Amino acid sequence: MTTDPFGWARSLETLFDQVWTRLSRGVHDRHAPARHPTLATVSTSGRPQARTVVLRAADKGNGTILVYTDLQSHKVAELRTSPFAALHIWDSGAHLQIRLAASASILTGTDVAELWRKMPDHARMAYGSTPSPGIPLSDALGYTKIPDPEAFAVLHLTIDSIDVVHLGPNHRRAEYCRAGGWAGHWLAP
Amino acid sequence: MTTDPFGWARSLETLFDQVWTRLSRGVHDRHAPARHPTLATVSTSGRPQARTVVLRAADKGNGTILVYTDLQSHKVAELRTSPFAALHIWDSGAHLQIRLAASASILTGTDVAELWRKMPDHARMAYGSTPSPGIPLSDALGYTKIPDPEAFAVLHLTIDSIDVVHLGPNHRRAEYCRAGGWAGHWLAP
Repeated sequence: MTTDPFGWARSLETLFDQVWTRLSRGVHDRHAPARHPTLATVSTSGRPQARTVVLRAADKGNGTILVYTDLQSHKVAELRTSPFAALHIWDSGAHLQIRLAASASILTGTDVAELWRKMPDHARMAYGSTPSPGIPLSDALGYTKIPDPEAFAVLHLTIDSIDVVHLGPNHRRAEYCRAGGWAGHWLAP
Repeated sequence: MTTDPFGWARSLETLFDQVWTRLSRGVHDRHAPARHPTLATVSTSGRPQARTVVLRAADKGNGTILVYTDLQSHKVAELRTSPFAALHIWDSGAHLQIRLAASASILTGTDVAELWRKMPDHARMAYGSTPSPGIPLSDALGYTKIPDPEAFAVLHLTIDSIDVVHLGPNHRRAEYCRAGGWAGHWLAP
């Protein structure tokens, strides 16, 4: 008797649960594929932008995700102009592509003070650099990093829809929408 | 005596060469991180979209990349409206993030007939499905795949700029632009 290791891909409900299981692993396991999603945004000139981010929280009940960033980074400026974000994860072990369409709120200052207070010193080093991220330098190391709570921002991503593709022996694709109560339906892959 | 395994990150020239070495590996080695970039586009409603693609060719001399797709896929419709694309690669072994900003041309029919002719049968299965990708299905497996040369499209991506981040003991970031003859300059990471 053999067991299908990807049996969870066969029903809309178990596939949805698997997505959130993988997202949760990304938050808690630094080696999980969902630890480092690609965040895509639209630049102020209307071009797509994509970069690696770290998944900090994933709340299945609310359908929300948290990502931390430097307030001076280009992605913050982009999300202020167009709040739409896409998060992409390719989990090769599960043969699973997870695509989240989301809307971003940018939290700063007192809204994130508690998260900052709990953050260890080495982690704070990622927030606050002179010059700001993306500014040209004459020397590769011509920048300084000094932790600055005013440079710490949290992207609060409210998921609008989830598109999942499972590339098992059979290819399956499903979409789940907040507006549909996350009920889900199959799509042609 | 120890040797820095990431010595190539220290100069603009060797960092640029490393980017193209990694891209070339992605084309020739199915297990290389650059084998599966994330392709970001902007949807017809102005939202970012991101999905995994397979890197099929990388030409350093011309600064171009090829990706294959089903002509009926959403990404083709998106690129017809807005030709701008972003390709994102995270190479964890090299601690290297590669971001390519590109403009896409969509090649079909006689322009891609030679590539189709050389393609093995099992690979052709990825092009041509009924219903088209992304169409709702009542059953997960309620689709058929019949190879169709008319459904085969090649995205010819002309790279406009490359943004590279190396997360070694020191963080380094550089940008190379076609308009600048790919000379490159450092950026604050």
